[in-house]
Amino acid sequence: MTIKDIARNTGVSVSTVSRVLNHHPDVSDDVRQRVLDEVERSGYVPNNIARDLVRNHSDTIGVIVRGNENLFFSSVLKVIGSEIADHGYTMVLHYIDSDDDEVKAGAILERERKLLGLIFLGGRFDYSPEDVAGINIPYVLCTYNNCFGSLEDGDFSSVTVDDHAIAYTATRELTRRGHRRIAAVIPSRNDHSISELRYNGFLDALRDSQLACQPELVEETGGCFQMADAYNGVCRLLERTRDFTALLTLSDTSGMAAMKALSDAGLRIPEDVSVISIDGLDVSAYTVPTLSTMVQPSADLGKESVRILAKMIKNHDYTRHKLLEATLREGSSIRTLA
Amino acid sequence: MTIKDIARNTGVSVSTVSRVLNHHPDVSDDVRQRVLDEVERSGYVPNNIARDLVRNHSDTIGVIVRGNENLFFSSVLKVIGSEIADHGYTMVLHYIDSDDDEVKAGAILERERKLLGLIFLGGRFDYSPEDVAGINIPYVLCTYNNCFGSLEDGDFSSVTVDDHAIAYTATRELTRRGHRRIAAVIPSRNDHSISELRYNGFLDALRDSQLACQPELVEETGGCFQMADAYNGVCRLLERTRDFTALLTLSDTSGMAAMKALSDAGLRIPEDVSVISIDGLDVSAYTVPTLSTMVQPSADLGKESVRILAKMIKNHDYTRHKLLEATLREGSSIRTLA
Repeated sequence: MTIKDIARNTGVSVSTVSRVLNHHPDVSDDVRQRVLDEVERSGYVPNNIARDLVRNHSDTIGVIVRGNENLFFSSVLKVIGSEIADHGYTMVLHYIDSDDDEVKAGAILERERKLLGLIFLGGRFDYSPEDVAGINIPYVLCTYNNCFGSLEDGDFSSVTVDDHAIAYTATRELTRRGHRRIAAVIPSRNDHSISELRYNGFLDALRDSQLACQPELVEETGGCFQMADAYNGVCRLLERTRDFTALLTLSDTSGMAAMKALSDAGLRIPEDVSVISIDGLDVSAYTVPTLSTMVQPSADLGKESVRILAKMIKNHDYTRHKLLEATLREGSSIRTLA
Repeated sequence: MTIKDIARNTGVSVSTVSRVLNHHPDVSDDVRQRVLDEVERSGYVPNNIARDLVRNHSDTIGVIVRGNENLFFSSVLKVIGSEIADHGYTMVLHYIDSDDDEVKAGAILERERKLLGLIFLGGRFDYSPEDVAGINIPYVLCTYNNCFGSLEDGDFSSVTVDDHAIAYTATRELTRRGHRRIAAVIPSRNDHSISELRYNGFLDALRDSQLACQPELVEETGGCFQMADAYNGVCRLLERTRDFTALLTLSDTSGMAAMKALSDAGLRIPEDVSVISIDGLDVSAYTVPTLSTMVQPSADLGKESVRILAKMIKNHDYTRHKLLEATLREGSSIRTLA
């Protein structure tokens, strides 16, 4: 079905059909209605890319997802996809490994696809202006920001939770319930990433509860929140000591893997060890026992990223750094000490 | 950094730079090397979309994902994304709800983005040639086929597992271990979808084990494998009867939700009820107890879909219907009856 078929079936010229489809006023109401009826009946889809070429712009937003295995990113990506469609844009998606350079991937995608803007889902927190010089379009950092870097706030946007506060709140929930020996299984203490921010929140919560951090209770796993890393990290921790009553992990999949490792070692949750985590995935609401976790607003992280980018595309001077709230989802994986 | 900058910095004309970048032979080796060195040094990215316009084609593959909440699709999508990039194509992604029309979404995307081909991740099994008349490019059905429809095999490709066989094998694993009263919690008996295919595999396995299907042990949940549906389905089943020793669910997230519902009702897995499922998600390897499940080859489903589509793009007469094998992952959620 082409524009010629529409013209033939309605007995008007191709240029008349084109005028109707492009909302020109110089068509009679009768002809306009006949053409629109035939378009409706035939299921004809106007060829918008031809229109785009004439207009010399695309309607495409690039999304770079860093880290293939992150279930939390999956939940945010779905919302980003729907929101981009709702705004009338098209999403070009590119996955990179968690140790790949998302800025370089973004720069290549920008040139190849004539993008209007970019959303980075996950990435480094320490970029310099030189690092991002290849990006010449508006961009939003989703789930991270530039707190270890040197970018000007007015050069980009970000939508994040307060990662320090989220781990602080989770840890204080444990101390409030009487826990004094609290372990943490984390990717890294000092990798300039989300793990460092959350680990510092953990330390500050211990300090504000008049507790010293016990180094033997902190296990670094490396990696990027793979479940096997967390499982093995808990196994190493248990080989060293079982003298703790609570455990913090920094993602729900890590928390699920930690519960599995504790259970396989014969420990009961929460009777022997309380477990608290961060993410709020749907799937972690169905663990036995239900995982207690800080719920990140995944839908709002996705929606706000697209909304802010849409404003930046219309007004290149606009930027915004939005901080969203997390809330505790009380499961049954933590208990109050007598 | 533009092609003009490259020309200025190397002291040659813009058209010479263009000839180098487009692999024309009429450039001296010395000049070619100088230009390529400058391209390398400057990080210049050739503007491929301009080249595409001249060539009058894009390098874009559309992917329509039907159903936002499906963790199994997430695992396949990641592989599709990587494989599309490895083939040098760009992925345009569009999410639709599980009750939306993926063929219509594909037709619109085809026209708007000048696609080379389409991959449908999830969809209806019962299309007629009229239904897909709007699709004029090669397409692959990933994770489903047309077994309830009337398409010609030579008109499309598909990459699937044998959904009847996968449920048959799972059920026979239960009967082999002595289970005689086996429940099933499924989306639907007869929706012309993956649920109907798998339910028929369940019935045939019972029959081949000389067991009658007990209608009171089958609970239909509706929906598309949402965890809450499976949880509520098991609750309704338990209100009706507890006289069963094993339970089949048709997806891992359903299996996880079912284990939660059984546990919340005071039943032990596998001592009171054995649970077996279908998918083989990473996350279900970390449940307590570990979920026994038929592992779908998610990576191969994604890879083969892209590889077959790439061949179809090069040769429009090529189609392929590929059936992949599933394998049992033995967890600890099923037991052998004495």
